[in-house]
Amino acid sequence: MLDEVLKTVDGRRQQAVTALSEFLAIPSVSTRPEHAPDMFRCATWLADQLGKADMEAQVLPTAGHPIVLAKNRHQPGRPTVLLYGHYDVQPPEPLEQWISPPFEPHVRKTEAGTDAIYARGAADDKGQVWCHAEAILAWQSHGGLPVNLTVLIEGEEEIGSDHLQSFISEHRQSLRADIAVISDTNQFARGVPAITYGLRGLAYAQIILTGPSHDLHSGLFGGAVPNPANVLCQIIASLHDSSGRVNIEGFYDDVLELTPHERQMWQRLPFDEQQFARSVGIPHGSGERGYSTLERKWARPTCDVNGLTAGYQGPGAKTIIPSRASAKLSMRLVPNQDPDRIMKLFERTIRGRCPDNVKLELNWFGASEPVLVPVDSPPMQLAAEALRIGFGCEPTFMREGGSIPVVGMIKRLLGIDTLLVGFGLPDDRVHSPNEKFDLDALHAGSRTAAALYDRLSRLTDSAPHGPGAAQ
Amino acid sequence: MLDEVLKTVDGRRQQAVTALSEFLAIPSVSTRPEHAPDMFRCATWLADQLGKADMEAQVLPTAGHPIVLAKNRHQPGRPTVLLYGHYDVQPPEPLEQWISPPFEPHVRKTEAGTDAIYARGAADDKGQVWCHAEAILAWQSHGGLPVNLTVLIEGEEEIGSDHLQSFISEHRQSLRADIAVISDTNQFARGVPAITYGLRGLAYAQIILTGPSHDLHSGLFGGAVPNPANVLCQIIASLHDSSGRVNIEGFYDDVLELTPHERQMWQRLPFDEQQFARSVGIPHGSGERGYSTLERKWARPTCDVNGLTAGYQGPGAKTIIPSRASAKLSMRLVPNQDPDRIMKLFERTIRGRCPDNVKLELNWFGASEPVLVPVDSPPMQLAAEALRIGFGCEPTFMREGGSIPVVGMIKRLLGIDTLLVGFGLPDDRVHSPNEKFDLDALHAGSRTAAALYDRLSRLTDSAPHGPGAAQ
Repeated sequence: MLDEVLKTVDGRRQQAVTALSEFLAIPSVSTRPEHAPDMFRCATWLADQLGKADMEAQVLPTAGHPIVLAKNRHQPGRPTVLLYGHYDVQPPEPLEQWISPPFEPHVRKTEAGTDAIYARGAADDKGQVWCHAEAILAWQSHGGLPVNLTVLIEGEEEIGSDHLQSFISEHRQSLRADIAVISDTNQFARGVPAITYGLRGLAYAQIILTGPSHDLHSGLFGGAVPNPANVLCQIIASLHDSSGRVNIEGFYDDVLELTPHERQMWQRLPFDEQQFARSVGIPHGSGERGYSTLERKWARPTCDVNGLTAGYQGPGAKTIIPSRASAKLSMRLVPNQDPDRIMKLFERTIRGRCPDNVKLELNWFGASEPVLVPVDSPPMQLAAEALRIGFGCEPTFMREGGSIPVVGMIKRLLGIDTLLVGFGLPDDRVHSPNEKFDLDALHAGSRTAAALYDRLSRLTDSAPHGPGAAQ
Repeated sequence: MLDEVLKTVDGRRQQAVTALSEFLAIPSVSTRPEHAPDMFRCATWLADQLGKADMEAQVLPTAGHPIVLAKNRHQPGRPTVLLYGHYDVQPPEPLEQWISPPFEPHVRKTEAGTDAIYARGAADDKGQVWCHAEAILAWQSHGGLPVNLTVLIEGEEEIGSDHLQSFISEHRQSLRADIAVISDTNQFARGVPAITYGLRGLAYAQIILTGPSHDLHSGLFGGAVPNPANVLCQIIASLHDSSGRVNIEGFYDDVLELTPHERQMWQRLPFDEQQFARSVGIPHGSGERGYSTLERKWARPTCDVNGLTAGYQGPGAKTIIPSRASAKLSMRLVPNQDPDRIMKLFERTIRGRCPDNVKLELNWFGASEPVLVPVDSPPMQLAAEALRIGFGCEPTFMREGGSIPVVGMIKRLLGIDTLLVGFGLPDDRVHSPNEKFDLDALHAGSRTAAALYDRLSRLTDSAPHGPGAAQ
């Protein structure tokens, strides 16, 4: 049966582009209040499309933007899959840098010579969501999906998914599933499909130091009072040792070390360190000693300054001892680091290194858990088979350095793992002007999704259903 | 004769306040283009006043604001004194914090219970300039000043004295003198008059570090690329050792150490460390180990961050590795540190500590030399006598931590030392709302100025005239 479904997917290549173009033409910019009607229009459009595939689709309100929730006719004894995606997009600015307008999708050649559709949201995440819509449509032409599918497409991913947690909590019963699927990640490279089996977590802090109660004349006071900007630099500098390791006691206690197998696997990936450095304008990378660039990005924790603010920042000179200095600073965490524990260690360290005549204020701007799904688990192996069918070549198992908080949220609230089967490419320019999605990715992604539902239908009922199912 | 002159000064207390009020009512804010007419009006008003005292006074144009240049009838065989001051003032904002409008001078009680005149420029520097005007007027009533006096009052002190150097160079012949006098400093405390015999110099740098060519996603790149904000913190932290000393090789080589006599003298000054800390809102001061607060402020060099800028500084979180990070950083220098040499040492140190995959740009925003005038020199001792007469008590010899670049300029271009005989008080709130000048300071300052011209008339012709005179 899958062969027939794939033939249908193959036959709809042009229709898929046309449908995706309609989706992309709706300017669903979640951060802009003036786009609220577009958000609703986009959710409604998507629900309509899923309805045409014989799903029961609803547009459900939240305190923010609505969520699209759709289900096929669930049948007992079949595995249940939860598909997550988002229909909101980043703002398109700067507009003058777009070759074609961000909400008027255009197909043209990429720098690599492939064909791609250019529009805001093309890869992140409308194009990837549409791969699944194509798969659902194709299965529908052949009697329907072989799994119970619940589709949850939110409209606030680009602005922090503020209302998703309460939505999932409230709809826990309705969302129970055996496995989650998200297509919002990348292929390793063009023609090298990938399953992302690990993500880093995050703990994001703001440090505010106050020395004198007001800015002081650096001539009249300099040298005799604590300068919070100098102190901030000392504290931040103390957070790394000379080998590039994070210098917080206990920080590495729970870090899951890379296995020799993983290191070998990653060494074999087609990754060029020099090309990597060139692409970001540096002569060579740097970081924790003893690790390769991929290892540093995917499997080692970090402590990076995201922003610094103190004193006078205008042109020319101003001779002041600033009263305040602050830093935004985030740690990327790796399996099995616990964000809560790391936040405690961080705070203890910072407080311990702050002189007693400087006031320290510490704010946390969110945390998310690292993710690691065992490569040899049955769902993973089934997803690998799907990619093999969809792309016609062997998939790579990779990790990603960024964080996808919803994965931790699904694990925590529904008790299930997530398969990250993504179709984007590293050169898709997500969040930037001229975002695109290769038409090959759209097609191979649709095939992969179709095959994935076939393979996941083989998941036995003995798979863990987690706390969500137990209630 | 001095007694008669002082009696005249004493008799003009009310007239002095009235005249100063006229001076203060002119909003001579040098930084604001819309005040250009006020600047010219202020210079003209001042020249008129000096003309009434039988001086030949001119308003001379510069590429910026005009300079008032005035001379009494110079007679051969008499010492020549160059009086420097400035008629421009800082902007008055924030206006809502002024109890009476900044350019409508009001006399009222201070927190200390004394009478003071409140207005922008009251202490800095119109009130102090007016002390000399009162002295000149009083001497005029008694046959004229006993010295050759050249008065140079500029209008750009608050904006960097950009056109003063070329003015002094061009008028070198006309400005030749035996000694310079500036009243733009403070008494040590209310009722403790002072001569400032030392000033710190300055070297002000901007460091700009560039890592990646553009801001990067901290998840996708963090840990594998150099973060210029972290590097900046490391470099800045490295600039001090654990005892609070500046960690630049050779930095202290030329530092003139305090003599035991100076340390003793300063220990006897009525200075309360706790009160000092309280006044700036810190539990206690800090700085180089082994030195008191006054020693740190007046006689030890520093390296202070004046501003820090990097990455995201808005509300909430943004997960980026910033492409650039920059710091404004200044060193206060002490006798006999040479700003040029220090700038070279600083640059070599910074470059040596910057990793090779981070680009370093270094800009200098001005430098000025430290100043030290021997306390036992004849002009100093004559100035001390004048203060004793003017205030009726023993003056203190103090240093100041700030920099007055014009002092180094006068030394370099005219080859003469400057007497810093100031009448302000530490609570005068210069550059802040509710700036004031105590009426007692106006009166004792006028008496001191009158006595100073008497005493300086005793300077022998054998005093060094310097390169300006030699030409």
